[in-house]
Amino acid sequence: MDLNADLGEGFGAWTLGDDDALLEVVTSANVACGFHAGDPRTMRRVCERAVEHGVAIGAQVSYRDLPGFGRRFIDVDPDELTQDVVAQLGALSAFARVAGDRVRYLKPHGALYNAVVTHEEQAAAVVAAVLDVDRTLPVLGLPGSAFLRLAREAGLTAVHEAFADRAYTPDGALVPRRLPGAVLHDADVVAARCVAMATGRPVHDVDGGELRLAPASICVHGDTPGAVGIARRVRAELTAAGVELAPFA
Amino acid sequence: MDLNADLGEGFGAWTLGDDDALLEVVTSANVACGFHAGDPRTMRRVCERAVEHGVAIGAQVSYRDLPGFGRRFIDVDPDELTQDVVAQLGALSAFARVAGDRVRYLKPHGALYNAVVTHEEQAAAVVAAVLDVDRTLPVLGLPGSAFLRLAREAGLTAVHEAFADRAYTPDGALVPRRLPGAVLHDADVVAARCVAMATGRPVHDVDGGELRLAPASICVHGDTPGAVGIARRVRAELTAAGVELAPFA
Amino acid sequence: MDLNADLGEGFGAWTLGDDDALLEVVTSANVACGFHAGDPRTMRRVCERAVEHGVAIGAQVSYRDLPGFGRRFIDVDPDELTQDVVAQLGALSAFARVAGDRVRYLKPHGALYNAVVTHEEQAAAVVAAVLDVDRTLPVLGLPGSAFLRLAREAGLTAVHEAFADRAYTPDGALVPRRLPGAVLHDADVVAARCVAMATGRPVHDVDGGELRLAPASICVHGDTPGAVGIARRVRAELTAAGVELAPFA
Amino acid sequence: MDLNADLGEGFGAWTLGDDDALLEVVTSANVACGFHAGDPRTMRRVCERAVEHGVAIGAQVSYRDLPGFGRRFIDVDPDELTQDVVAQLGALSAFARVAGDRVRYLKPHGALYNAVVTHEEQAAAVVAAVLDVDRTLPVLGLPGSAFLRLAREAGLTAVHEAFADRAYTPDGALVPRRLPGAVLHDADVVAARCVAMATGRPVHDVDGGELRLAPASICVHGDTPGAVGIARRVRAELTAAGVELAPFA
Repeated sequence: MDLNADLGEGFGAWTLGDDDALLEVVTSANVACGFHAGDPRTMRRVCERAVEHGVAIGAQVSYRDLPGFGRRFIDVDPDELTQDVVAQLGALSAFARVAGDRVRYLKPHGALYNAVVTHEEQAAAVVAAVLDVDRTLPVLGLPGSAFLRLAREAGLTAVHEAFADRAYTPDGALVPRRLPGAVLHDADVVAARCVAMATGRPVHDVDGGELRLAPASICVHGDTPGAVGIARRVRAELTAAGVELAPFA
Repeated sequence: MDLNADLGEGFGAWTLGDDDALLEVVTSANVACGFHAGDPRTMRRVCERAVEHGVAIGAQVSYRDLPGFGRRFIDVDPDELTQDVVAQLGALSAFARVAGDRVRYLKPHGALYNAVVTHEEQAAAVVAAVLDVDRTLPVLGLPGSAFLRLAREAGLTAVHEAFADRAYTPDGALVPRRLPGAVLHDADVVAARCVAMATGRPVHDVDGGELRLAPASICVHGDTPGAVGIARRVRAELTAAGVELAPFA
Repeated sequence: MDLNADLGEGFGAWTLGDDDALLEVVTSANVACGFHAGDPRTMRRVCERAVEHGVAIGAQVSYRDLPGFGRRFIDVDPDELTQDVVAQLGALSAFARVAGDRVRYLKPHGALYNAVVTHEEQAAAVVAAVLDVDRTLPVLGLPGSAFLRLAREAGLTAVHEAFADRAYTPDGALVPRRLPGAVLHDADVVAARCVAMATGRPVHDVDGGELRLAPASICVHGDTPGAVGIARRVRAELTAAGVELAPFA
Repeated sequence: MDLNADLGEGFGAWTLGDDDALLEVVTSANVACGFHAGDPRTMRRVCERAVEHGVAIGAQVSYRDLPGFGRRFIDVDPDELTQDVVAQLGALSAFARVAGDRVRYLKPHGALYNAVVTHEEQAAAVVAAVLDVDRTLPVLGLPGSAFLRLAREAGLTAVHEAFADRAYTPDGALVPRRLPGAVLHDADVVAARCVAMATGRPVHDVDGGELRLAPASICVHGDTPGAVGIARRVRAELTAAGVELAPFA
């Protein structure tokens, strides 16, 4: 099983999250590429440390939106989005190579992640960027999304992820954040769900039914001290359950 | 002989210079990499057209300064400058590869170009970026600059350029722009000087003496309609004089 | 009758449109406030020249989107949009006051203009900014828009504009730009329509029917050489028809 | 005596320092105006809370440099710097007025603060902005700086500040940060020095001699948890010594 988290999301004088702590937990790092966060020095440092820890470097691509941290949908022209993603892949690739590795996968960030679940044109635009740059690059996203479907249709490797701390509907969709119970905060519950996902057992959906998720990667968070604690717990419980942790890419 | 010019210096809705006209004139394109100009769509289009025209793609790297168009000295930390250059090289490389070629050289832009003539730390920082990314990448700059000296000492290929439309002092330095006569506007004079430079003959320095410049590339400008006309004239006169034009890299 | 146009839409080294030409034509200048275009030096120069020409200064407020020139819908949080508008009003006000006048109206730009036709939350957010800053400030927009309705309901002066070069549907909406005939390019036709609008006579809608528009201001464009010519023609024909031109605010 | 500190230096998703804690300590808030930090929502919130606490709002103006947090000297054209400062004053003024007060002073930030100690053109450019916007606005800066001298010569109110946690040379200049002992970390020492400054007694200079500083305001820091503790201690000791704390402007 793979554990992924967002890293390198500071910018200049500003920091966000605890990259060093997370690099001890995850096996794949979604590294910000400068469009929603991530200045060049941060990209370099995170890439170097990821390589030291044997953590796979992924390109966490975003709308061009530093003021909004990539959290706002932007109705960008699909061709412009494609080129924005190519630029981000290119910049991060340079740092990954300097660090002795290469970019091993792509995952959209924030509002773009949510948009490409249903927005066919933007999903296709991200896929087009990957096709342009490297047809062997896996993409990580939400099962059932337009993004992963179009990626697969285009011949890319489409990798499913599940969220450690999010509630799911009976049909496997995420419960929207604005609804109560959407985000799970109990480390015991979160870790137990991750073990279930990783060992082929069902988890409870938001209605109490059984839901079988079969992710290749589980996404944990690290942008609060509590979140790092939960992430550590997830790793500890997975290891205790005999689940081998390794990058998916 | 090589002719180089700055291209791709628009940004979003804004354009600057006549890229299409210049691609008919030059053999090397200094393509803006997004830090002083050059959005991803522009980078892609310029790279694709450069390849179509057989024009070599160079990375025109800059301080991070869109509001100042990279024309203002910034006392940036050398390590930060190195990573800024790595990021620019990475982004442009992605577009060059998508276009079917690769980045063939690096040339600093604007205030950074001027700074690395004498600023040892910043010159070393740019050299360090090239060493990190690709030790075979030639760098283009001013003869006598700290930048080319440090590049050579580090084992890089350091390429000399001369300016078609700038006056030189007797010792081969550029006459500062603020002084009268620093910039030449007469197409006859400019073209004749270029033919002299390209055929091993001396040009007049600002005091009327003879100065022998031996550039591997001549820099022309294209950001005004008049400049494009002068650039065309330079190419025509060089061709008429039997000088073969081809990329230096 | 008032004629308005977008001015001050350059940024740093980049220019857009012919501000000086338009200042001879219009009576109201929609001055970019730095969020989609308009650096501080440009804001100052345009404000000073507007005052010299007796042209009213309006705040052309936008999403924060220099790379997209404010032409892309951004799903920004309404409170953030309010504060973004307050900041733009504040910056332009400083320059208007330095120039000896003050900001006399507000008009949303680009994608924000289009969004607030129907997007109630964003329309309310822009209205909230005006209420916060100056309840006497008129707002300029599209008749029938949520924006003008909410502005009126909040006690603001809501001013109707019509577009000189756009086709209208029978019910007074703009024909979307993607449809054929949406933009009129014939200076004779455009000028004649403006005279009709300004003298209480109907114009033809896109289906050939009669449509009576009663704008307090007509919007002309100036971002292409042809557009400036049309704008001049509109002013000349209005003047020839005895229509007095003066700022609405 | 006045206590000032930098506030509102977050940007979008990123925070920096503990604004709420500092608002309990200081009497004057140097509020970031968006050019090195400070998005509009942050500006609004800080202005509102400052007014609630009776803390004076000052404009902390900077080079336009979000990636560098305003900490890098930029060789900006003086006229451009003037307009950059006018824009910042305008934006913050809008928020100060919405909050029920107004901007009460100006203080340069970071690299600009240091530059205007000796850089006559940039110092004059900042003074020119204040003259343009409001000749009654006091400016806060380093005693002996070109900035305060030029401000005084132009008829502005030039206010001296001292730094709570910085060592001084025998002639009253700051010991450069790169030298050992430049920054004081012992809360006892820092608080005692502030009491001395505020009660007309000398402090020790870096060589152990007596130095009499007579600031109208003392600058404390708050961008680390330890710094907030020191700032609280300074306030407590000043109060215990009978020093009345109130905004200087």
